[in-house]
This record gives sequence, structure tokens and C-alpha cells, in this order.
Amino acid sequence: MSAGKRTGPTDAERLARATVSLVAEPGDLRCLGLTQELGGVAFLRALQEHPDLAGALAAAAARLVEVDPERELDHAARVGVRFVIPGDDEWPDQLGDLAHAGALNERGGVPVGLWAKGPLRLDQLDGSVAVVGARASTTYGDQVAGDVAAVVGASGRPVVSGAAFGIDYAAHRGALSADAPTVAVLACGPDRVYPAAHREMLRHLAQHHVVVSESPPGASPFRIRFLARNRVIAALSRGTVVVEAAARSGALNTANWAERLHRVLMGTPGPLTSIASQGVHQMLRSGAGTLVTSGEDVLELLGTAGEHLATEKRGPERERDRLTAGARQVLDAVPVARPAPTESIAVVAGLSVQQVDQALRELSIEGYVERLPVGWRLAERAHA
Amino acid sequence: MSAGKRTGPTDAERLARATVSLVAEPGDLRCLGLTQELGGVAFLRALQEHPDLAGALAAAAARLVEVDPERELDHAARVGVRFVIPGDDEWPDQLGDLAHAGALNERGGVPVGLWAKGPLRLDQLDGSVAVVGARASTTYGDQVAGDVAAVVGASGRPVVSGAAFGIDYAAHRGALSADAPTVAVLACGPDRVYPAAHREMLRHLAQHHVVVSESPPGASPFRIRFLARNRVIAALSRGTVVVEAAARSGALNTANWAERLHRVLMGTPGPLTSIASQGVHQMLRSGAGTLVTSGEDVLELLGTAGEHLATEKRGPERERDRLTAGARQVLDAVPVARPAPTESIAVVAGLSVQQVDQALRELSIEGYVERLPVGWRLAERAHA
Repeated sequence: MSAGKRTGPTDAERLARATVSLVAEPGDLRCLGLTQELGGVAFLRALQEHPDLAGALAAAAARLVEVDPERELDHAARVGVRFVIPGDDEWPDQLGDLAHAGALNERGGVPVGLWAKGPLRLDQLDGSVAVVGARASTTYGDQVAGDVAAVVGASGRPVVSGAAFGIDYAAHRGALSADAPTVAVLACGPDRVYPAAHREMLRHLAQHHVVVSESPPGASPFRIRFLARNRVIAALSRGTVVVEAAARSGALNTANWAERLHRVLMGTPGPLTSIASQGVHQMLRSGAGTLVTSGEDVLELLGTAGEHLATEKRGPERERDRLTAGARQVLDAVPVARPAPTESIAVVAGLSVQQVDQALRELSIEGYVERLPVGWRLAERAHA
Repeated sequence: MSAGKRTGPTDAERLARATVSLVAEPGDLRCLGLTQELGGVAFLRALQEHPDLAGALAAAAARLVEVDPERELDHAARVGVRFVIPGDDEWPDQLGDLAHAGALNERGGVPVGLWAKGPLRLDQLDGSVAVVGARASTTYGDQVAGDVAAVVGASGRPVVSGAAFGIDYAAHRGALSADAPTVAVLACGPDRVYPAAHREMLRHLAQHHVVVSESPPGASPFRIRFLARNRVIAALSRGTVVVEAAARSGALNTANWAERLHRVLMGTPGPLTSIASQGVHQMLRSGAGTLVTSGEDVLELLGTAGEHLATEKRGPERERDRLTAGARQVLDAVPVARPAPTESIAVVAGLSVQQVDQALRELSIEGYVERLPVGWRLAERAHA
């Protein structure tokens, strides 16, 4: 990629990377690393020409004869799926951070390309926010995820998540409720439906937003592909919010990636009695992420200073805040229960009896204090 | 105080400090500061001899003629209340930190003495933990406060709190349930009962533990005395846990004192939907305190390294953790839904077909995978 106008990748490079995508696993560090270093064309030539490959490289080389990348690209285009690669205008450059982020669960590296279905362009996801969490979420967690996603989305930042039950689903629903862009990153091909119950949602996202995968059309949702997928969610987004996650949840894998990639990692707390929140609490306690209480908090943490200031949650303005400092000083010295004479209130307030007498009369007119036979005490209003 | 054996304060000093306690307000920075600097005897002489005092000093001087400290000390002794002052063996030296902690709400300084009722000695509170929070607590908050206090108390650390409804009450109840020492610090005299509903609890604490106040017997619970009292709670304890606190709650005043005194400040999260937790979340979000999820977490933060290690909450050990790395690698490559042939699983796993075939047979015997006519997929057990 040059700093000036991009010339864009060649057709040969696109075909080569499609080939690599068909023969190598998502997040395979060796195949991805070599493709990034040499380019797809040269890596492919190396695969074809080296007689003594081992491990993942050997497996990829062995698959070369089985795949027909031109036919796959044609087929993808027919089902509305495009293959976006580094150098394309649409390529999300932030994924480049994966080149130096190492591996987790033996997955890592910059994807050789992304298969995308839907009108939302991937280069629009620079400021996006990932909202992830437990599949076995609670009603509370779903509500929090939906609220956070709606506020984040309404601000113009796209929401990114998976397509699983629970928090993923609630996050998309929240973004959609705010008419906001939302992105599903899948562990299977972008044309596949997993879980089947989310067919309608995935159809909607592919039609109006975008569904993305590192795996080509038709690929199945293997367990290891979920781990590879999590790094793409974390890398695409500016920040990741974990809403609910039991200890050792997959969402914490995404959180690890976000931290490793120096993205903003956030978590929403929940009841200590809820197992679904334990992983988030553990994460927050370890200092790995920042506690957020709302979408506004998320925007404040992500935004440039002063751009999105979360409205400080505060109690209703107390009426007494509107009193003068002197009147408050007297009010603070008036007993809450057993009445006290003016003199003892003056001692407590550290003011003269005359000053206090005057202030008590005024406070009494405004309903803050009441006079009883034996002295003064706070009236109902002052308790507010 | 000398570094060697204490000689203890003189009777004259004790009488002088009792006098100051009777004429000055708790937390009055000028009276307390001068008493600490000059000693009670010299401060009293200054009060009596200076003709041109102003503000709180003038008010205190004016009250001198009204009080009879000898009679008050006698009366206190008769109702089982002792007056503990700096230099006494029982004096909690950690309160000295208040000398350099400034003021909040115009309250601050080292108390001239503490009025105490009950057998628990105040010099035993060095490692204590304050558990404070909202009066308008929720059932959830009460449960958390009780659990935290019980665990902290069972470890031998005394619990410190106020005597208010809600979290204070739940904290004492939790400590008592663990047969642990617990301390109520009051804003009124230690012989007074406020709120009246807690008569039984206060009686029990004064009989078996200790009830403490900066105010002498008979003193009323003025609003400003609660603010002064909060600094004593924070200063007595090694750490303060805020369990529930609405925005602008009084518990956050105690939290501010704990932070200012370089004590360990902690907070327990709750549902974002609960107003009672908003103040705690705000505190944690600002980085002022550390999130804790249990009494064990509190002990870990307070204890010397390795002394109290909170048991890491983790999911149940997954069965698959017991598999060999090779078997897990194959298992990770088996599809969750649509079956795949051995060859494609081998590609995903990056292993030879022979290796994978062998592993699949073993995994199948153990019930992790199942063979269908078209290939292999995960069995029920592997989803766990």
C-alpha cells in the first residue's frame, strides 16, 4: 500500500489470495504470515514448488489441486459475496495490527482477505464498537447489550458482533432498533446460517448491513474458526465491550485480543450473584478493562476528548444546593430528630446566635426547618 | 508519643480534651488542629485567655462556662462509656493520618478523643475493614454486604460501619453471623440510639463489641456530625468497601476520605439497572476504587502478598482439558453441526489424514465425536 493514490491489487493477487483462503485455515499463522510477507502470488508459488513442506503448509499445498478459486469467486459473486483484500479501497486497514499481535490458541495473523455480503463497506468500520458476551446470557445482560449497542449505533459508530444466541443477538437487535449499522462476523462462510435460528437476522444484516467472514462461502463453523473469528471482531473495532461472560467464556478470548491489539477494552458489571457476570467482573478486577455503565460511557472512552461526554449520573439536584452557604451551614447544624434550641444550633454551626436566629426564620418560611416548643429540627423538605 | 514505653497522658490532659470534646464540634478543623498541636491543656488555656477569638473558636470559648467535664466523665463512666485519647494504650494510632488529610465539607482533623462503649479495644482495629453503603439498600445489596462482612470478620479482621438502616445494618449482621468483632461509629453520643429501630443491635454491640463516637454521651445526631463521623470510619479501617450507594450518597463521602487517607478503597458492582449501585459504578469507573466481588477479594487486596489469595472463580474444568494436545487439535477441527469427512478435518487441523483418523476413533470411543454416513461431527459431550 502506497501513501498516495492506491493502484489496487492485481487480479492475479486477488485470485492467489482467494486460493490461499480456500486451502488455509483462518488464523493459520504460517500461511497468513507468509502471504502477508511475500504476497499471495509468491506464497502460492512457494506452496506449489516446495517439495518438502510440513504441517499446515503441507496440508494447504495438498489441497491446491482440489480447489478452483476462479469458480469460487464466480460463485461468491453470484450469491452476493465479494472478496475484499489488502490494497482494496474497501479493505479495513486496522486489521494490519494483527501482524504484530502474535497468536492466541495458535490463531493469529492478518486475514488474507475477507468475504463480505451486504452493502456496508468494510472501510467504514474504523470507529466501530464490538459488543460481545455470553451465549447463555440473562434477560438483564440482553437488555444492557441492546441499550449499549443502540446508543453506540445512534452516535454513528457501527456495532460489530458475532451471530450467536444471547449477547451477540441482543447487540444486533439494539443497533437495529436505533437504525444503526451493524456487522456480524461469522466463523463459517458468510452465506451460511449458523445458528439456524438466526436465519432471519442474518438475512436482514446481509441485505441492509454486512455479514463478514475470513472463511469462504460454504465453509462450516468449526470450533477453531470461532477462536480465529474472535480476533477479527476485536481487530475490526476501536473498542470491545464485554457485557456478560462466565469465567472462561469465549467472549474473554475476544477481550484478550482487544487488549493485545491495544483496543479499548470495556465491561459492564452485573449482580455478583449472577454467574453470567463473573467473567466480566474478573476481567475488570484484573485491571484488563474499564467498567462502563452505558453506551454514553463507551462513547466517552472512545471519543476524542470532549466529543462525547457521558452525562454524569447524579442524584436529583437537591433543593438545599440552592441555599446560600450561610443558610446551608445553619441547616447542617439543625438536628434531624430531637429539637435543639437556637443557642446550641449556633454552637454547632460556629455562627453567632443572631445570625442563626435570622437564618432559622428564613429556613422555616421555606419549609426546611420546623419550630417545636423545645427548639428547632429539620422539616420534611430538608430530608429530601 | 515516644517510641519507647508510653507514659500515658496526664489526668489534666484527659480532662482538657474532654472539655474540648464538649465545647467543639466533631471535625472542627481549627479546634482539633490546635489541640493536636498544643495539647489539650494549652489549647484550653488559649481559649480561656484570648480575648479576640472568632468563629468556631469563639463559640467553643463561649461554651466553656456551660460545661462540667469532670461531671461528664463521671457520668460517662457510670453508663459504661470510656474516653480514649491519644497517648492511651488503647488509642488507635491510625487516626493520626487525619492530621495531614485536610478537610471535606469543612470537617477534618484528628479527633481530640473517642468516646467508646463496649469491651472491644480500639487499638485492635488496625486491620479492620469498613463496610458502608446506602440506607436505601436493596435486598441484593444487603446480601452482598452481609456476605462480605462475614468473610472479612471470619478472617479475624473487625468490621467497621455506621448504625444506619440498609448496608450498615447488613454489615453488622453479617459480622455477627460469623461471630466476628464489629464496630459501630456513631454521629451521636455512644449512649444514644439512632435510628431508634436499631436499639437492640446497638445494645448488643455495646455489650459484646464496641460502639464509638467522637461526640460525648448525650450528643444528638446532627447532619454535619455524620459527615465528620464518616472520616473516622475511613481512618479507623485499613480499607473501605462501598456496597451500594446512589449518586451523591453519604457513603461516597466515606469513600473520599478513604482515598484521601490512602486506605484501600473498594466497591462491589451491581445491576446497571439499580439506582442503588450507580454511585459505586461511578466510583469504580473513575478509578477511585477497585472492584471486588467477595470478602475473599477484599482480604486479598488488604492482606500481605499470598496471605489471603482469593480463589479464582473459574468455570468447571472442561472435560476436554484432560485430552492430549493432539486430540484437542483434532476435536477443534470437527464441525459442530454439518458433518465433515476425515480429509477436510485433517486440513483444518493441519495434521495428516492418518493422525486424524486415529484421533477421531479414540475421540469417538470417549463420546466426543460421532460418525454419520457423510462424516464426523461433535457429539453431545463435546458441547459441554
